[in-house]
Amino acid sequence: MPANRQIHLDNRPKGEAQASNFALVDSETPPLKDGEVLVRHHFLSLDPYMRGRMNDAKSYAQPQALGQTMGGGTVGEVVESHNPQFPVGTQVVGMGGWQEYSVVNATLPGALRVVDTRHVPLSAYLGAVGMPGVTAYYGLVHIIAPKAGDTLVISAATGAVGSAFAALSKARGCRTVGIAGGAEKCKYAVDELGFDACIDYKEHTDAASLSAAIAAACPKGIDGYFENVGGMVLNAVLPLMNAFGRIAVCGMIAGYNGAPLPLTQPALILMQRLKMEGFIVSEHMEVWPAALTELGGLVATGKLRARESIAHGLENAPEAFLGLLKGKNFGKQLVKLV
Amino acid sequence: MPANRQIHLDNRPKGEAQASNFALVDSETPPLKDGEVLVRHHFLSLDPYMRGRMNDAKSYAQPQALGQTMGGGTVGEVVESHNPQFPVGTQVVGMGGWQEYSVVNATLPGALRVVDTRHVPLSAYLGAVGMPGVTAYYGLVHIIAPKAGDTLVISAATGAVGSAFAALSKARGCRTVGIAGGAEKCKYAVDELGFDACIDYKEHTDAASLSAAIAAACPKGIDGYFENVGGMVLNAVLPLMNAFGRIAVCGMIAGYNGAPLPLTQPALILMQRLKMEGFIVSEHMEVWPAALTELGGLVATGKLRARESIAHGLENAPEAFLGLLKGKNFGKQLVKLV
Repeated sequence: MPANRQIHLDNRPKGEAQASNFALVDSETPPLKDGEVLVRHHFLSLDPYMRGRMNDAKSYAQPQALGQTMGGGTVGEVVESHNPQFPVGTQVVGMGGWQEYSVVNATLPGALRVVDTRHVPLSAYLGAVGMPGVTAYYGLVHIIAPKAGDTLVISAATGAVGSAFAALSKARGCRTVGIAGGAEKCKYAVDELGFDACIDYKEHTDAASLSAAIAAACPKGIDGYFENVGGMVLNAVLPLMNAFGRIAVCGMIAGYNGAPLPLTQPALILMQRLKMEGFIVSEHMEVWPAALTELGGLVATGKLRARESIAHGLENAPEAFLGLLKGKNFGKQLVKLV
Repeated sequence: MPANRQIHLDNRPKGEAQASNFALVDSETPPLKDGEVLVRHHFLSLDPYMRGRMNDAKSYAQPQALGQTMGGGTVGEVVESHNPQFPVGTQVVGMGGWQEYSVVNATLPGALRVVDTRHVPLSAYLGAVGMPGVTAYYGLVHIIAPKAGDTLVISAATGAVGSAFAALSKARGCRTVGIAGGAEKCKYAVDELGFDACIDYKEHTDAASLSAAIAAACPKGIDGYFENVGGMVLNAVLPLMNAFGRIAVCGMIAGYNGAPLPLTQPALILMQRLKMEGFIVSEHMEVWPAALTELGGLVATGKLRARESIAHGLENAPEAFLGLLKGKNFGKQLVKLV
């Protein structure tokens, strides 16, 4: 029974999430039953959706239970096994949560997925070749459904989802424009992620000004928009949508702390006959095989080289997570545990 | 060359539309060329979309040209013909506009459609068995796509679109709830149109209060919403949408006069994985045959008995139209010209 450390949700945020909402707890891993394995986590994934689960509100996900280990994606290695299909040494991705070890019933379908690290690094299975990559794939392929020559825009362009989106969009012959915070991120988006242009929203204090800057980068208007943030950015993009444009709503991170985020011109949905659709990738498991195949190929061939922001040590997970909510990360936010 | 009278758009509204935006003009109908017919209009249709066309703004429709006859749907009778397929006496529906007569090149596909008034009254071809009916059909069948047992809600419930929607929705086994303005309209919706319940939005001064009233009529939440008005009503409905709910956006009449209509909680689109889609029925001509067949059957069998508000005389069209924009009509707004 190795010693384990966990981060629990201790209390729910009132407004902005705080470090004091979390508690670091020492525990021990329970003994394995038949079919179970003990996974040592190498990386923990931090993702914006976790903020929504911290609230006890009607939302798409079950609220995170108080006094329990925060949920989250992990990659690691089997270090003890009562399951012959997952021998010691197997590298796996799963939902181990914010802790150093997890005991998993590996007989449950989908509980653990074996990964191949010959051409794709282990951590990428939490990013480009994991949930964020498939998120980009679903919104792009199944909601935006672009044709070559379309202009596509994504907010939070340099994050894990945005990085994958750029590679997938360019592979389909689309003009691909990002929106990100800061000159450094925008330069990176164009120089390394393959975006045709990237707009720094921090240079703008209102939607009209931001909209003009985006318009200059989208001379043919916008056919598809992948929304990760909401608020001013969405209000800036909406007037630029072409007729029959599609908006995949993946995140409204700007509203997770309770700030009001009105959509100022909903009548544009009618005037331009737009389709706006919210989705959660975990409800579309049927697309994962095709998505992971394409994403793995893009990573293995160097066409998708997503940056990672890595915090070290479980005790630093809350701080890294709060930074992620404020856009302090640069690329996929991970916590390295080994 | 019979004397004709026309209503022109004289100048564009600044804010609310006014009677002074229109001008009554005397003219003569031009002589017929080969293929043309002279149609005497019996009824002119007044519809909310016309308000959008009065603005010179980016919208789905071409702006109505200044100094020209206002466009609009008409039913009437051929009174002079240079087209053997449309002999004198033929009853037709077309887009004759706000005038007493129109000269139409009946060889153009879709310019005139012959109608059968044995089981369906002529005026119904501008309402339940015309554009408003097909509008209800498209939003219901192709966007909301309900299954039996779903709860569907529509605003402007007693209008031409709402009346048809109720009959189509009930035919599909859906709980059907209307939103309308005033106790009389709500009683009519339930007693005559077949709505299971109807909420009077005029009893509420804010979205939260209206939302509570709608919630009481929708104990299982809302699976599909047909939006005709926007504004407070949309903000009241959105929090009641079930996961994977569909919103067909057909009108935002509350915003046509330029009043701001923010959507206060767009994050619900994500949280409940909603699909929200704007549409214009004239862009979906492929559904008209199936729609008109079903709608004609519902009218002929008495299952759809839509009320009409009838103004008399072309000179009263502007006033009737301005009343429509304020919800003063009760049912499909027509102008009787003969």
